[in-house]
Amino acid sequence: MRQIRTDLAMESFQAAGQDAIPGVEVNHWETMGVQMTEVIIHQEDAGRQLGKPQGVYLTLECEGVRQRDMDSRLAMANLLGEELSRMVKWEGEGPVLVVGLGNRRITPDSLGPLAIDRTLVTRHMFREIPEYADKRMRSVCAIAPGVLGVTGIETVEMIRSLVSTLKPQAIICIDSLSARSSSRIGSAVQLTDTGIHPGSGVGNHRRALNRESLGVPVIAVGVPTVIYAATLARDAMELLNEDEQDHEEALDDIERQLLREDLGDMIVTPREIDSLVTDVAGIIAAAVNRALQPELSDEEIMAMMD
Amino acid sequence: MRQIRTDLAMESFQAAGQDAIPGVEVNHWETMGVQMTEVIIHQEDAGRQLGKPQGVYLTLECEGVRQRDMDSRLAMANLLGEELSRMVKWEGEGPVLVVGLGNRRITPDSLGPLAIDRTLVTRHMFREIPEYADKRMRSVCAIAPGVLGVTGIETVEMIRSLVSTLKPQAIICIDSLSARSSSRIGSAVQLTDTGIHPGSGVGNHRRALNRESLGVPVIAVGVPTVIYAATLARDAMELLNEDEQDHEEALDDIERQLLREDLGDMIVTPREIDSLVTDVAGIIAAAVNRALQPELSDEEIMAMMD
Amino acid sequence: MRQIRTDLAMESFQAAGQDAIPGVEVNHWETMGVQMTEVIIHQEDAGRQLGKPQGVYLTLECEGVRQRDMDSRLAMANLLGEELSRMVKWEGEGPVLVVGLGNRRITPDSLGPLAIDRTLVTRHMFREIPEYADKRMRSVCAIAPGVLGVTGIETVEMIRSLVSTLKPQAIICIDSLSARSSSRIGSAVQLTDTGIHPGSGVGNHRRALNRESLGVPVIAVGVPTVIYAATLARDAMELLNEDEQDHEEALDDIERQLLREDLGDMIVTPREIDSLVTDVAGIIAAAVNRALQPELSDEEIMAMMD
Amino acid sequence: MRQIRTDLAMESFQAAGQDAIPGVEVNHWETMGVQMTEVIIHQEDAGRQLGKPQGVYLTLECEGVRQRDMDSRLAMANLLGEELSRMVKWEGEGPVLVVGLGNRRITPDSLGPLAIDRTLVTRHMFREIPEYADKRMRSVCAIAPGVLGVTGIETVEMIRSLVSTLKPQAIICIDSLSARSSSRIGSAVQLTDTGIHPGSGVGNHRRALNRESLGVPVIAVGVPTVIYAATLARDAMELLNEDEQDHEEALDDIERQLLREDLGDMIVTPREIDSLVTDVAGIIAAAVNRALQPELSDEEIMAMMD
Repeated sequence: MRQIRTDLAMESFQAAGQDAIPGVEVNHWETMGVQMTEVIIHQEDAGRQLGKPQGVYLTLECEGVRQRDMDSRLAMANLLGEELSRMVKWEGEGPVLVVGLGNRRITPDSLGPLAIDRTLVTRHMFREIPEYADKRMRSVCAIAPGVLGVTGIETVEMIRSLVSTLKPQAIICIDSLSARSSSRIGSAVQLTDTGIHPGSGVGNHRRALNRESLGVPVIAVGVPTVIYAATLARDAMELLNEDEQDHEEALDDIERQLLREDLGDMIVTPREIDSLVTDVAGIIAAAVNRALQPELSDEEIMAMMD
Repeated sequence: MRQIRTDLAMESFQAAGQDAIPGVEVNHWETMGVQMTEVIIHQEDAGRQLGKPQGVYLTLECEGVRQRDMDSRLAMANLLGEELSRMVKWEGEGPVLVVGLGNRRITPDSLGPLAIDRTLVTRHMFREIPEYADKRMRSVCAIAPGVLGVTGIETVEMIRSLVSTLKPQAIICIDSLSARSSSRIGSAVQLTDTGIHPGSGVGNHRRALNRESLGVPVIAVGVPTVIYAATLARDAMELLNEDEQDHEEALDDIERQLLREDLGDMIVTPREIDSLVTDVAGIIAAAVNRALQPELSDEEIMAMMD
Repeated sequence: MRQIRTDLAMESFQAAGQDAIPGVEVNHWETMGVQMTEVIIHQEDAGRQLGKPQGVYLTLECEGVRQRDMDSRLAMANLLGEELSRMVKWEGEGPVLVVGLGNRRITPDSLGPLAIDRTLVTRHMFREIPEYADKRMRSVCAIAPGVLGVTGIETVEMIRSLVSTLKPQAIICIDSLSARSSSRIGSAVQLTDTGIHPGSGVGNHRRALNRESLGVPVIAVGVPTVIYAATLARDAMELLNEDEQDHEEALDDIERQLLREDLGDMIVTPREIDSLVTDVAGIIAAAVNRALQPELSDEEIMAMMD
Repeated sequence: MRQIRTDLAMESFQAAGQDAIPGVEVNHWETMGVQMTEVIIHQEDAGRQLGKPQGVYLTLECEGVRQRDMDSRLAMANLLGEELSRMVKWEGEGPVLVVGLGNRRITPDSLGPLAIDRTLVTRHMFREIPEYADKRMRSVCAIAPGVLGVTGIETVEMIRSLVSTLKPQAIICIDSLSARSSSRIGSAVQLTDTGIHPGSGVGNHRRALNRESLGVPVIAVGVPTVIYAATLARDAMELLNEDEQDHEEALDDIERQLLREDLGDMIVTPREIDSLVTDVAGIIAAAVNRALQPELSDEEIMAMMD
């Protein structure tokens, strides 16, 4: 089975071209104009086939988000907040640590840092001014660790250091993703309990951020902001030759050729990616704030942000 | 002859797939590590074939520019400055007006406005403090007019208004372009005496900016920052089927299909487009400043910018 | 009477230190938590005393705006929109032209350009796609002309050129202002039918933008973003010596001395000026959009912006 | 002795108004147009008087830096690089960790993060591609940890976590400072071996970053970007009353009054602070890169940065 380059489990499943894969459960439903697709990979084997670790992947899709429709954005923030609060269990001690992955200076990779800018952090209030800290508030801290080429420090090293100091009970990672279908850029959100795995994301993290590497549950929230140019080209070619098996070899040759001539560095993205990333970062942050502060109103959250 | 979507005359010529086209002259040479390609379209007819107006198109290419090699950047700024000063004739009265086309808030379309930010303007010095205005200085003014969707005003309307007030002797337009080959993104500069024509640029100007529409010579300086995703897909498909004429129809079908599913809005661009556009805007501005202020040193120009 | 440096007519009146000035009418009231102060300068003479042209100046003040209180922001946008729509008469033909004064690259001076980015422009829709142009829509265009040091073109020259092309029936200018009291920075808005006069604004326009210079009504909307450091120092000194008339000469000496040592270039501004200017630009744009599109809902306006 | 609010030890010494303070050594010299002032606080007692910890403070001043004079900027980068390399001893194992303090979204506080963006990091090259890691290269990593209100994590907690993981042999902290004299804003750099102490910086770190708190040598590089408005007002008042001792009480009253009415949040800064901070961050980063990579040329450093 041929694997295409996408960070969305639902696209990996679709690309496999089979109605059903043993060990993989797929559910669809729709709420408030948002299409929900849940892919549950029950077995490691099935995961290898799809190039994704075992776990739950929930994708929320709504075209209106990219068209900046107000109702669509509210619906997405609400539903994402609900699903996220279902995944975060406030059972242990310690804060929740929100991690914004990616590079602030590369627009399609800046989703994580931008979302962090709008995440309500409260941990310091408990420590510095405990008498004022609202009983209804939960402890949250946040960091945008930057990327390896800018810091010289692996993200996993940095987060592991912080985990040993902050002792969070859970981590939420926000990241830009790649997709296969242009219609999902800026209009889909994937939520997963598997964390971040190597080779995913626009910034290409080398090492996993998950319960194994960090010792606490890691939930990842991602939004596709790019298609890899080579994927697009490959797809275009497959489209042309879908019923001609003998072309497989020619396809491989051409893909290699395309990658050689710089296409490997090229991304496909909407012209309006700057405003799209800003918008979506706001939606993600709103969902995270609601999920992590269930007893505060939107107005209170807004007022507490500086 | 099939036309592909590129703003570079040299790529239109290459795409035509012929060694020679009547009425089109092509010259190649290399200086200081920069490849120069001059396409002169002598006849209107030949222009129609290439989808480009009659005139001179000079492309300077240097891969090192994109790799941020210091020597390559200096060589490019020097050569571009020389060629530009050859095109601008300081014969009439009045200032030279530099126009930065494009949208500051869309990264690959922000080249023009960014270059304007670093262009030395002097016209007000002659008017406001004539006694201090350096005799060696020439009168230059600059504007980034914004795009139709942001202003509600056609660029040509705005520039025509300014021309009637400022009475410039020449206009230099700086714009982001589209290309066909990914290797030219951020590493090639096209200089032409034909101005800007409809449908070109990343921002898609609807009406021409040229001597006909504005009444003064219009020189355009452009740098490719994107490939249209549909062009890339089309190219990939052509590559696959280069020797199969019967596929032509299938290709057209698929291209239409690709465009329908949102690809029309998608662009292909390097991941590092943010820093690339900033870098190249600096090179263009340096070349423009040298060409327009031949009697000032680089240090004097730098010191006069606020 | 000593004049202090402020762009707010209400502060000029207060600084005059008199309960009443012949030819000046002052009214106060409060609505929805917003303090309104109307200063009407009926006579040219009285205007000279206050250093402000004859006309109406309405100041809306609400501390909650700076504290990012949601209700305060909505109240301010609503009231400002109402007052603005009262000032703009849609009697003639032609669009309304919104002008964002100031320099995008100097944070406290960037209010105008930032507000323009969020102003709904529609003029091109009437021209390009008349059959789709909504009957309920009014024709609006917008420009951020940049500042003299960046363009080499006086703002009044540029706007006058555009007026002769666009033939607007009215102009709304948005600008950053200076104030005397730190409590008004980012929390007050001044609305006036006198346009912009020389020496006002953070960017210091040299020539008036008003009905005399442009031939159409000019309404100015301004928000104080800075206090001049020399004003602050002067004020501190006056505070100390308020009952000692003999110090007047010493004060003048010291003021001159302070200005000499670079204070003339220095501004006093809140630490959080970056987010404050962004917020306030949003409020101004919302008010402008409502005033200029009274028949469109907020949702329709949002959906029409790209 | 009255202490004024400044992060520059040389200004604290001047403000003390004495020619000599026991336990404090002051040296002046000039090189390449740069004024050097070294304040060595030999005794803790003397430090308390000046409100600064015991240690060496070197201030480099050059007005031309703020006027964007090319020679001045080069001279500053060269001298700062030399002095910095004198302070960093490469004796132990491990990388040097460069920390950019401050808030990227508050212009006068963004110096540290901006400098980090241009710091060459190499640590990952040794780890990931040891065979290619240049023998002449030294191991450097960098982080902009953000501020407490954005992360909920004290800077000292975050850096201490990283120290335990990275085991750096030294730390260089880059920060925005406050000064008393407007002439030093953007034109002076302070270098000290005492690290960062509570209450200093534009962002007001609550806890020290120094050898005591972090266990490794901490060198701080700071540039004044603001004067506190209350300091400016106080200074203006003192200037007026310098020979009138009986005003001391009145001064205190007025200072309190000024602080009450919001002046505590206000800063005094040059209008052009945006470009000034960008420029100075470039100078600091150039100096840091030279000090930390003495065997690489400027061209090699530039080429290695992405």
